[in-house]
Amino acid sequence: MKAVILLSGGLDSTTTAAIAKSEGFDELYALTVNYGQRHQFELDAARRVAKAQGVLRHEFLDVDISRFGGSALTDANIDVPHGREVETMDEVIPVTYVPARNTIMLSLALAFAETVGAQDIFLGINQVDYSGYPDCRPEFLSAFETMANLAIKAGVEGRLKMKFHAPLMYMSKAEIVRTGMSLGVDYSVTHTCYDPAPDGASCGECDACQLRLQGFREAGYTDPVPYVKRD
Amino acid sequence: MKAVILLSGGLDSTTTAAIAKSEGFDELYALTVNYGQRHQFELDAARRVAKAQGVLRHEFLDVDISRFGGSALTDANIDVPHGREVETMDEVIPVTYVPARNTIMLSLALAFAETVGAQDIFLGINQVDYSGYPDCRPEFLSAFETMANLAIKAGVEGRLKMKFHAPLMYMSKAEIVRTGMSLGVDYSVTHTCYDPAPDGASCGECDACQLRLQGFREAGYTDPVPYVKRD
Repeated sequence: MKAVILLSGGLDSTTTAAIAKSEGFDELYALTVNYGQRHQFELDAARRVAKAQGVLRHEFLDVDISRFGGSALTDANIDVPHGREVETMDEVIPVTYVPARNTIMLSLALAFAETVGAQDIFLGINQVDYSGYPDCRPEFLSAFETMANLAIKAGVEGRLKMKFHAPLMYMSKAEIVRTGMSLGVDYSVTHTCYDPAPDGASCGECDACQLRLQGFREAGYTDPVPYVKRD
Repeated sequence: MKAVILLSGGLDSTTTAAIAKSEGFDELYALTVNYGQRHQFELDAARRVAKAQGVLRHEFLDVDISRFGGSALTDANIDVPHGREVETMDEVIPVTYVPARNTIMLSLALAFAETVGAQDIFLGINQVDYSGYPDCRPEFLSAFETMANLAIKAGVEGRLKMKFHAPLMYMSKAEIVRTGMSLGVDYSVTHTCYDPAPDGASCGECDACQLRLQGFREAGYTDPVPYVKRD
């Protein structure tokens, strides 16, 4: 069965790819969107993960939304926060929010899916550990699915009924790590850090690193990627 | 008042820009998406139109969805149809359909709007003359608007309530031309043809040319752009 997966090369999308395969989606089409992130380590990781997961076709697409600004992930004038407590992260939508990012990436995945004839699209969004992003919520994804089936020719003609899968939606980071480990995922090829060192080592202090480290700790595993600082 | 407008440089988006201005949107932010169309004449026209309409800021964004294939507008292996009768154009969704095009362009416009603080987005879609595209229908746009307000930080925080305007939705091409003429639009700077000659002259025979020519004819005007062949 065919499926398109949005693959960032991080822990979540990598685990999602493994889950899709375990559910019988053996023809995976991966889409990695370069939206002007500050660093290239994510893209390198996506390439390694796609290879490890036996992806059939992997497309990289550049969409330079960084020129719009408005996010710490794409705008060098906004600092990535360090050392925040995990418990306080869901109090406000963080500065690492990228305007309409998931809407844009899902739109591109929709185009890819229609052209390859896939009606299942997987993405690694999750609302438990990190509820700050509006476009990681189930109500957003449900509204997107409704819109998508009105948008495409194959939907209107009844050839494809698009379905969006977010299998991590209600999992904690620890559950994600445990699920991935049980499916044999090699997390050493992934990349999560928002603010890595020049050699690619994760900072260990940004929101994303802290959540990842906590997930491995609670799951009872040691994160195999290198860190500049690890509590 | 601020508004974002998707500006292709064609007759419809140009008229839409003039309508937005006439409705009091005097701070226009234009977004032109280069999605791998076969020719650059559209982009040149967009630049001229933005200047003529006094656009405050004009962003060009490349999104190479042509690599996905699946459309005569982006895939050199699929021929653009010529000489079809206008009356038969709405019988099937045409090969010039580009997978998820309007979904992608509206997603990018949404990101632009959120960063500049605009809550009104204009686009020149129209379902009367040419009902073949699923993503030109009001039910699509309505579903997109619902999704958009769940997707963005400014929507969830109550700072912006996104509204999508498609003022041409129920107009015939002749009505569009008449409206634009009454607002003083200079159509000589626009470009519509799907398959222009090397010098940029419109073919006069593709679906888009035929609809445009018929619109001018029925409105009682002569189209000012050059044609290779004009009935």
